[in-house]
Parts: sequence; structure tokens; C-alpha cells
Amino acid sequence: MHLEETTWTDAEAAETHLALLPVGSTEQHGPHAPLGTDTLDAEAVAEAAAGQYADPVVVAPAIPVGIAEEHRQFAGTLWTSEDTFRSYVRDVVGSLASHGWDRVAVVNGHGGNIAALREVTARIVRHDDAFAIPFTWFDEVGDHSAEMGHAGPLETSMLRHAAPETVHEDRLGAAAADGSDGWGEWQGRVNLAVDSHEFTDNGVVGDPSESSADLGEELLDRSATALCDLLDAIRDRDPGPRATE
Amino acid sequence: MHLEETTWTDAEAAETHLALLPVGSTEQHGPHAPLGTDTLDAEAVAEAAAGQYADPVVVAPAIPVGIAEEHRQFAGTLWTSEDTFRSYVRDVVGSLASHGWDRVAVVNGHGGNIAALREVTARIVRHDDAFAIPFTWFDEVGDHSAEMGHAGPLETSMLRHAAPETVHEDRLGAAAADGSDGWGEWQGRVNLAVDSHEFTDNGVVGDPSESSADLGEELLDRSATALCDLLDAIRDRDPGPRATE
Amino acid sequence: MHLEETTWTDAEAAETHLALLPVGSTEQHGPHAPLGTDTLDAEAVAEAAAGQYADPVVVAPAIPVGIAEEHRQFAGTLWTSEDTFRSYVRDVVGSLASHGWDRVAVVNGHGGNIAALREVTARIVRHDDAFAIPFTWFDEVGDHSAEMGHAGPLETSMLRHAAPETVHEDRLGAAAADGSDGWGEWQGRVNLAVDSHEFTDNGVVGDPSESSADLGEELLDRSATALCDLLDAIRDRDPGPRATE
Amino acid sequence: MHLEETTWTDAEAAETHLALLPVGSTEQHGPHAPLGTDTLDAEAVAEAAAGQYADPVVVAPAIPVGIAEEHRQFAGTLWTSEDTFRSYVRDVVGSLASHGWDRVAVVNGHGGNIAALREVTARIVRHDDAFAIPFTWFDEVGDHSAEMGHAGPLETSMLRHAAPETVHEDRLGAAAADGSDGWGEWQGRVNLAVDSHEFTDNGVVGDPSESSADLGEELLDRSATALCDLLDAIRDRDPGPRATE
Amino acid sequence: MHLEETTWTDAEAAETHLALLPVGSTEQHGPHAPLGTDTLDAEAVAEAAAGQYADPVVVAPAIPVGIAEEHRQFAGTLWTSEDTFRSYVRDVVGSLASHGWDRVAVVNGHGGNIAALREVTARIVRHDDAFAIPFTWFDEVGDHSAEMGHAGPLETSMLRHAAPETVHEDRLGAAAADGSDGWGEWQGRVNLAVDSHEFTDNGVVGDPSESSADLGEELLDRSATALCDLLDAIRDRDPGPRATE
Amino acid sequence: MHLEETTWTDAEAAETHLALLPVGSTEQHGPHAPLGTDTLDAEAVAEAAAGQYADPVVVAPAIPVGIAEEHRQFAGTLWTSEDTFRSYVRDVVGSLASHGWDRVAVVNGHGGNIAALREVTARIVRHDDAFAIPFTWFDEVGDHSAEMGHAGPLETSMLRHAAPETVHEDRLGAAAADGSDGWGEWQGRVNLAVDSHEFTDNGVVGDPSESSADLGEELLDRSATALCDLLDAIRDRDPGPRATE
Repeated sequence: MHLEETTWTDAEAAETHLALLPVGSTEQHGPHAPLGTDTLDAEAVAEAAAGQYADPVVVAPAIPVGIAEEHRQFAGTLWTSEDTFRSYVRDVVGSLASHGWDRVAVVNGHGGNIAALREVTARIVRHDDAFAIPFTWFDEVGDHSAEMGHAGPLETSMLRHAAPETVHEDRLGAAAADGSDGWGEWQGRVNLAVDSHEFTDNGVVGDPSESSADLGEELLDRSATALCDLLDAIRDRDPGPRATE
Repeated sequence: MHLEETTWTDAEAAETHLALLPVGSTEQHGPHAPLGTDTLDAEAVAEAAAGQYADPVVVAPAIPVGIAEEHRQFAGTLWTSEDTFRSYVRDVVGSLASHGWDRVAVVNGHGGNIAALREVTARIVRHDDAFAIPFTWFDEVGDHSAEMGHAGPLETSMLRHAAPETVHEDRLGAAAADGSDGWGEWQGRVNLAVDSHEFTDNGVVGDPSESSADLGEELLDRSATALCDLLDAIRDRDPGPRATE
Repeated sequence: MHLEETTWTDAEAAETHLALLPVGSTEQHGPHAPLGTDTLDAEAVAEAAAGQYADPVVVAPAIPVGIAEEHRQFAGTLWTSEDTFRSYVRDVVGSLASHGWDRVAVVNGHGGNIAALREVTARIVRHDDAFAIPFTWFDEVGDHSAEMGHAGPLETSMLRHAAPETVHEDRLGAAAADGSDGWGEWQGRVNLAVDSHEFTDNGVVGDPSESSADLGEELLDRSATALCDLLDAIRDRDPGPRATE
Repeated sequence: MHLEETTWTDAEAAETHLALLPVGSTEQHGPHAPLGTDTLDAEAVAEAAAGQYADPVVVAPAIPVGIAEEHRQFAGTLWTSEDTFRSYVRDVVGSLASHGWDRVAVVNGHGGNIAALREVTARIVRHDDAFAIPFTWFDEVGDHSAEMGHAGPLETSMLRHAAPETVHEDRLGAAAADGSDGWGEWQGRVNLAVDSHEFTDNGVVGDPSESSADLGEELLDRSATALCDLLDAIRDRDPGPRATE
Repeated sequence: MHLEETTWTDAEAAETHLALLPVGSTEQHGPHAPLGTDTLDAEAVAEAAAGQYADPVVVAPAIPVGIAEEHRQFAGTLWTSEDTFRSYVRDVVGSLASHGWDRVAVVNGHGGNIAALREVTARIVRHDDAFAIPFTWFDEVGDHSAEMGHAGPLETSMLRHAAPETVHEDRLGAAAADGSDGWGEWQGRVNLAVDSHEFTDNGVVGDPSESSADLGEELLDRSATALCDLLDAIRDRDPGPRATE
Repeated sequence: MHLEETTWTDAEAAETHLALLPVGSTEQHGPHAPLGTDTLDAEAVAEAAAGQYADPVVVAPAIPVGIAEEHRQFAGTLWTSEDTFRSYVRDVVGSLASHGWDRVAVVNGHGGNIAALREVTARIVRHDDAFAIPFTWFDEVGDHSAEMGHAGPLETSMLRHAAPETVHEDRLGAAAADGSDGWGEWQGRVNLAVDSHEFTDNGVVGDPSESSADLGEELLDRSATALCDLLDAIRDRDPGPRATE
């Protein structure tokens, strides 16, 4: 049940405590993939999971701008401060919970959001009237997760399956050729870089030419299934604040 | 040029200083119109204006949750605090401006956002490196503006033209019958109510049965034209901060 | 009962839940009217209403500096950020309420404060232990409200009645001659200006030479009566927070 | 030159860098003195000093509510949080400075404000474009300072001279009889009390029956003279921020 | 019981409601005493008091950086904003209290922290679930307190007893010779200086050559005894919030 | 050069741009290791690295309380909010940088601090006048990193080498027996737990009985060497803010 397209009366009739909040980013994804890649992917996973879950699940509209200051040297990248992002997520989860949808999985499509989502969902669990938990789709695709990169084979594949019109397939070769092999500039296990332009010229990390729509379909299936499993695991969680327990 | 669907390389190639930031809300719009009405309408106006404007215009992804605590008693309504909303808008405008798109019209679809947008855009103009200005579409449709209401003829008409599949036309009669004639509970010119449930049982103000797709087309045309006129008016504004001038 | 001049023991003896909090501004009012116009006017209205109301009403000291950054290019204009202003008002209302005076009308004399007062009083009603509501005197003077302007006939008349020594009557002609006909610089219904110096050279909008002490007396009477009617309307409001209702 | 009663054109004509910002409090001052004692006293000192100083001095309207949570158990006491108070003072000083009045003495009438004023003025001096300094009148009356108390002989005397109609002289005896000898509940040099009701039943500390209008005149004269000396000392201070020097 | 060196199981076994939180500063203390003087002294006092108190007392690790912006022109001085410092102290006290150690004496070694500690502990007492109170050791050494200065005889003596290896005794003469007689630059009772470099060239105020280890031992004994007396006084205080009482 | 034990004059004489800021935590480390484990370990690594580095390195005092709310159900655990912690670190780094020590490695001993340190150091690099980077010692010990756990073999070994008096070796067996094999409660790759008590009864994760002083010596040597390599890598970094580059 996508809230954006649902009336309040139909929303009220839904018998569920479960909600999904897709969270994306608007940021460079190389010369071949759109700035909205992370949002489109998160929405696709949320939609697939809600569609296949046995019981009703509320799907909130996707938050389209996240923590992406690290890509700011690439045109079109949008970002908020970490504090603003956390507040936005916390407020939206709080309003979802006010309607009884108080077991919320935040379906995330962007690596840069992970730490902030972990922080804010733990805060919600401890201090607010809701249980919230982050779910980052590309961490839930089995061994494929190791090939993540940025605008690389995973994200590109997902798009080629879920929103193929947004991918410039004719640019995949150039995207790979000018991309970087790895994320960051490393000294031991410390990343010396704070921005992606320090280690990639075109924004790409990994080889998007290894992407395919078939792989995308598999990734979507794996992550949607994992998300449904997560919904099973949280549906009976106590949404009450725990800070004083 | 919709950023969500554009690559950073194509975005960089756009020769423009102009950007549109659609801002909506996820909130009750009666039993007949979807919770995403304000977002869908704002997106439609932004898309139409960008499409017909003579020069390129960047369109950011829509901010889907705004200031709607006043509708919180109706299921599905989402909101952020005013502070969070202002911070989110300010950060997004700031990142748009960092790429040279520093004359930004915030295309708004929700009355509850107006005061906060006026505040934050004035702050941006005075203190940041951007010129930003709010544009609320239903204030720019000539004499029709007087019939605004909430989930009434204007918003419903716009949807019936721009996203007809989201409107339950079979519920228009009941929506009108159970709705309210006016917004607020008045003592002189003071509104005693802080929440909409104090004066409307089903969330409706005004008569949505007077809506039509034809009227929606006219409203979209009028507001998109007004928005293009606004772009003409701001394209040469100085984006520098004015606080110390 | 003006708190400033009352002892705590006498204040404690007052049997009432009603309080008035005058809120003004220190900002340019043309060459003929003082920087404290908005404060003086708000105090006059609050005093008149408290004096004529049937039951005791607590009157707090006036908040003298509000949201007036838009007039900052004119000497003597003082302002706080919107956040500071809202916090100040919220804290003062909270302390009034702590003594049982928890139905508070904020008597406002400045247009620039209106949106912030609406925001903060709604927040108080929903989340704090008080009922608060803004009352802007020049919106409550019948058809005269249409002639408001800035430092124009209404404000000047009120002063000529309530604090005539502060008005330079010999400058009224020049004030009118160099003033502006209307507030703002408009493109459709969008005000392109953020500061008043963009559209008025001497700070005046409207014709203060049309002011008179007689009109001022009428304005004071009308607004004080309207304020008493508002007190009647709110005296039995539940002051408890509503956020979780 | 009191800004409240001055036009912006006359304010602009004033040739000075000096401003006074009176800061008071609305809080219990025993059964005999008004809640506005601290504000009235601060205003009297500022007015006297501005009147006798050789050059023009701008006098801002008094900030009427300060840090007085410690008196909250006594009816009529108003307060803001320390953060709100500091922000309010900082913003007002900043707007004074924007007009060239950037050497600001904050004329304080309330002990509870002292620490916060010291903090915020140091912040202004180091980080903003102004020089600001707090001046608490009852610390500047020679040996009399030792008799300060609360609603005691000093404050009551000042009022009996500057605003005699606000003092209930017939209650002085009772005020003294039920008052406390000293401020606080002490263990060594640590005050165990956080609120004044812990050590005084009627809010009084010290003996207000020892007050007199003559003493008040002397106190006003001493403190106004000390304030003029302070203006001499700060008039040539560099108002620029020092943080990076 | 020093938490730093204690296991959680042993901490849990402690039967006490009392805790000490040492708070220091890292800031210049002349050419002869270390930057950590205030922290070392606060720790010594807390350790001595906890050691001699009849019942168990929890000792938290010392907060090493406080409010010392006033010494920033001297190398090695570290500081936080006042807001950050207050938040840090409040959070630490809150976590101490969560374990039942909810009568907390904040053992302070730095004059610049005093006002902020008074503010934050009063806030804790009124609004949180703990009783907290500041104790500044050099205010609790009888008549010696008058000789405080900065890096003067008191602090230097304390160090020569408690951490003699950190004092350069061979520099005491030069430290005294180049130091200042008094703190501040005074106009009446107003300190015109905001930073210590305005009135001392080497950071010293007072005569450290008058210090001795014997005096240090006496100071430690006096202050530790005073702190034990304070623990006696607060051990039965109600730790509940008082704001709504 | 440990600032705590150094005079400002000696600090000023140090010719270096490099500083280390140890950051620990006060939190449960099982029945055998002290609450201060993370602080003690971070200090040991910083001290070792500074001692063996070819050029002078400033060592700030350790921040003793960090982000440890997840351990709050175990007695003695102290924590601050994430916001407070980030502000504290940012302020301290800023004051280090003000003295020219503007290439700062934050030497961290606690996993719960990592995300917040990454966030705040990136903010410093982009917006402040300093280059800062986090270094977490147990991530820099080669393959040993995989055995981290909590209060497990790595942390316990480090302590047995660096602060052996703080470890209860007689409790190692029981600590291991009652501990947990792994961190978290997992559904796929999502950790359902927000607090450590959800998956460990005594706070231990991993087998501390596998610890040894010899291993501790190796860990200290490896991590100190890695830290020195990091200092080499950052010593010529540009400390200027990059936000507008």
C-alpha cells in the first residue's frame, strides 16, 4: 500500500503494524546511471517486498535526498547535513508510528546513509514510540554484496531491470574505462579521502559493463526476499521506548 | 531536466542558473484523493513549466513530506517539525546552488508549507549563496484561487488531469456531503483551531464534486505559465548573500 | 493586572486563567512614527482590553524586539532570528501557564511576527501545558484592515490616539510623499522582495497623512472589543497538550 | 536617545557608536515590590546615564524577561531558558551593531542574568562584529553593594526614588519580618539550593524597611556615574571579532 | 571506586548513591605548571575525598577539556563551547544517575567552568532524574581562597604535593616576575578584558614562588574534608526532577 | 609531548603540525576488564606512537566518555549523545588546530565511536581549518582484527601488556564461559539488537581467556607502527577547509 497513492480512509482500513520507508539519494552515479539511482533502487526493493509479503505493508514515499556531501564535486549531487537527515527520518518514522504503523524498516539504497540510519533508528528504538531498523538492499544479496562499488555492476543491474530507460547502456564501456577499481585512498585500513573525487574521475567505482538486467532481477528478488524475512522478524517487536527499562 | 533521471555528466552540460524544487506533503485529502496529492500536483506544475520554458531548467526530486501536523488525526498523514523541514529545504537549495543553479523556485503544493518556505527562502536570500523564492501553484490560478479549500475542487481537478488514476471519482459525492464549507473555527479573524479535525470530519473543505479534468488542465496551464513568468523575473537576480550589504 | 507593576502576592490572588502577552517590534516606521510603534500599539490594545474585560486578565510585559530583519537597512531596526523569537515566546507562555494563567492571547502589533506566532502557538497547544493563540490588532478592525500598509494610516492613527507625543505630525506630508503605494515587488502573487528597502525609500507604505486621533480611538475600540470576544472564546479551552490525543 | 520613541531618520542622524541595552526580569520581589523591579531599575539607570553622558547614546528597549527559573514557585515570575536568553541578547546586540552602534553596554538589573550575560558578551566580543559588556547596576554602588539581598534595601530604595508608585510602603514591615537573612542554603561555600523558595517564604532576602527614596537617589547617581565611566572606557574599543587574532 | 579501573560487576556491587565527577581543563598555567593543572588538581581532590569518606563513592573519569577560550592565545590551551561543555556534563551525570548514583558532586578545578556548572547542575536538579551540585576545590580552602590567582600559589602548591613531577620549580621565580598581580582589566567592578592575554604576559596571576608542597598538602586536606561534608549534606537529597512541583 | 604534563611555553616550542587525540569510552568490559578499557588502550597506542615517531607529536588528553548507550544496562557505563560527542571532538580538534597542530589523528579505542568520528572528521576536513582523521587501533593489527569481539582477546591482551594491574586474570575463565560468541542478533545482515545486553549476559563477546601479555605487546607494536605510518601520510595534508573548492 503506497501511501502516496492511497486515501486516508483506505490507509486507516489497513490492518498492519508494518511500514517501509524507502530512503535514497540524489548523487552522481557515473556517466551512465541517473542521479536518482539510489532512490529508484530503494523504491523498487520496497515495492517488490510489499507486493510479495503475505500481509499488508504500508510503503511511505521515498526520501529523495540523503547524505551525499562526499560526491558534491559532481554536478547534480544533492545533500543535507547529517543532522538534518536524521531529523527528517526520525520525524517521518514518528508520524508513521502515530497511526499504528510502528514497526518500520527503513529501506536504504545509499551507502552514505548507513551510519546515520543506524544512529537514528537506535535512537528511535530507545527513546520513541516505535521500532525502526535500517535495511540496505545491496548488503542483502548474498555474495554479490562484495562487488558493490559505486555505480558499478550491482546498482546498474538493478536499474537495468527496474528502470531500464534511465540507464545509458552505450556509455557502460567508457564508464568502466574511466572508473576506479576501489573506493577510497587507503593508508592501512584508514581511508584518507573524504570525497569521492579524490579517487575517481568519473564517479564510478567497479565495472558497470558487467551489469545485466538478469542480474538485476536476481538482486531484486534476493533483497526483496531478505526484506520480507526481516518483516517477519520485527513484526512482533515491542515498539515502546526502552531508555528507562 | 529531471535530476532524478539525469546523469551527472548531462547535468553538468546544462547551461542554466535556474532550478525548480517541488515540495509537497503526504497528508489526508479526503476519502477520494490520495495522500500524495500535494506532491503529485507540485510535480505536475514543475514538470509542465520546465517543459515549456524556453531555456533549460533543472528540476530536483520532490520533497514528499512537509508541515502537516495539523492533519495528524487522519491516517497516513506524515509530517516533520517546521525546523526539520526548513533545514531540509535549505540544505537542498544550497546543494543545487553549489552547482551553479542558484536561482531556485520552490514549487509548493501545500498551504501548510507556505509560511515556512517564505521564512527559509528569505534566510537563503539574505545569508546564503543563492536566490530562492517560493511559488505555490494554487495561488497562481487567477480567480480560481478563491475556491481552494482542502481536497476541494482545485486540487481534485488538477489530479483528475495530471494523475487521474489516483482519484476515486465514485467517492466525490460522499466526500462533498461530509466535508466542511470552510477552513477553521473562527472568532473574528482568529482561527481557534490548530488541527483540521476540529472542523472537518472527513478532511474535506470545499466541494470536490465540482472538480473536472478540464478545469485541471486549465489550472495546470495557468500555474505553469505563471511559474515561467516567475523564472523570467528571477533569472538575473544576484544570488549573493545580502546580509551585510 | 500588569505583571510589571504587580507584586507576586497580588498576582497570586488574581482568580483567572487568562493572560495577554503583548508582542511588538522595534523597527522603522517612516520619518514620522517611532521605532517602537508596534510595541506601543500592542500594549495599548492589551491594556484597553484588560481594562474593559469583565474578569481579571493578567498582562505580561511586552516583548519589544521581534522578527524585523526585513527592515534592517533602516537605522534603529532591531531583530532576532525567527528561532530565537519563537523560543522566547514559548518560554514566556510556558512560565505564564505554570502559574495557572494557561489560556494566553498573544497580542501582536507587527505583521512580520504573524507566521512565527502562528507556528509557535500551535506548537504550544499541541505539545505544552497551555492554550495560546495569536491576535494581531490590525486584522481585527473591520474593513479598515485593508488600509494597513506600513507606518500608514492605521498605525499612525493608533499612535496619535494612544501615544500622540511620539508622532511627528509635521512630517506626515513628507512621509506620504516619499512613501510607497504598496508592499512588495510582485510577479503574479509572488513577492520578489525580501527587504522593505527594495520597494520603499523612506520605509512608509500607505498614506499616513490620512491618519487621525479619532480614527485611532475607533481602531483601539474595535480591536480591544475583538480581543475581549476572543477571551470569551478561549477561556474554557482545555490547556492540556493534544499531541497524543 | 530612546529607540522606542525615536524615528529611524532621527536615529540615523545620531553620531555615536555607543548603545545601552537594558535587561531586566519579571520575577517576584516580595510582597512590597513589583514583579518588574529589575526591569524598572535597569531602565532608570540606563536613562540616567544616557541623559548625563556628554555625547549621544542610543538606548534600546528593555528586555523584560530573563533568567528567573529559580523564582518560579512565586506567582508571576516569568523566565526563559538560559539558551533562549543568550540568543535573544546576542541577536539584539547584533542588530544594534549593524547600524554602527557597536560598543554596547548591557545594563542589567538582575543577579540571575549575570553569568549568562558574561558568557554571551564574551562570545560577541570574540566572534561577532561588536564589543559588548555587561554592567549590573547594584555591583556599582560602592560599599552599598554588600547589602544587596533580594527585594531588599537596595532594589526597594531605587524604586522608591525612580518609580515610587510601584512600591507598597505599607508592606515593608511585613516583608522584612517574613523575609530571609541571607541568600541560599550553604554547606561550606556551596549553595545547596537551586530555587529561592528553599530559603525564603515571601521571596525577600534582606531588610526592605531600611530602604528610602534618598538612598535610591544616591544609588541611581552612583550607578549612572559608574556607567558613564564605563562608556568612556569602551568608546574606543575595537568592535571587530577577535577569535582568529 | 574509580570507574576507569573497576569492572562493571564490581561497580554494580557498590552500595551507594554518591558519585564524584572531576572536571578540569587543559589550559596554560604559566611557564612552570602543566596545561593539565586543573584536571590533576580536581582528580587529586576527588580521590582524596573518596578515599576518606566513610561509605563507598563512585569516581568517574575526569573531563579533561572545559571552558577555556579565554586562554586561547597561549599554546596548548584546549576548549569547547559552553554549550558543548554543558551537554557533555549533563549527559555524563545522566548516565551516572541511570545506575543509581544519582547524587553527584561535580569536582571542579577551573574557575572558567564555574558559571556553566552552576547552570547545568541547576537544570539537572530541576528537570532530570538526578541531584547534581558543583564543588570548586579552591573555593573550599578557608582564607586561602583569597590568594587564588591563576597558576599562582594555590594551584602550584596543590601540584607540588599531588603531582610534583609536573612542576618546574626552577621557573617559579621567572613565572612570578613576569606574571600579573591581578585578574582582569577593571573599570569599576566591570572587567573589560575577555581574554587573559590582555592582562598577563606569561599567563600567571599571583605569585607561584610562594607555593610549597606543605601548603599543597593542607589545601588538599581542607578541600577533601569540605567535599566529604558536602557528600554528607547531599546523600539524602531527593534526586527526582522538581520542575513541576 | 603530552599536553596534560607540558607547560604552554614548552608546547609553543614544539615544531610540529601533528597531534593525536585519544578517544576512549567508559563502558562495561565484562567481569574481568575495567570500565576504562577503551580509554586505557587508546592512550597506550597514542603514547607508543608519539614515542617512536621521528618528529615531535602533540598528544592531547584522552576524551574518556563516548558513545556507549548500547551498554547502558551494565553498571558503570557512561555515555553522551552522539551530537554531544561530535561537538566535543570538533571543538577540541579546533582548539588544537588554532595552535598550528592542524593535522590531527583521532586515536580511537571504541567501536561505538567509529561512525561518529568518521562523520565529524569529514565535517572538519570540509568546513574547518584542520585536517582530522580517525584511527581505530584494533582495525590496524593485521589479521588479528577479525578476533575483536568485545572485552575479548584483543582488548584484554592490550591491557595485560599496557595496564596489567587493571585485569582480573582469575576471572578470565568465567568471563569466557558466560560470554557470547558473536556481536548482535542477526536477521540476514541486519542486526536486530540495539543494546548489547540483548545478546550477552556478562557483556563479553569472544574469548578473553585466549588473551596474553605477549599478544598485547604485539598488538601495541602493530597499531603504533600503523599510526606512525598514518602520521607520515597526513603530515603534508592541506588543513584548509575544502567545502567551496
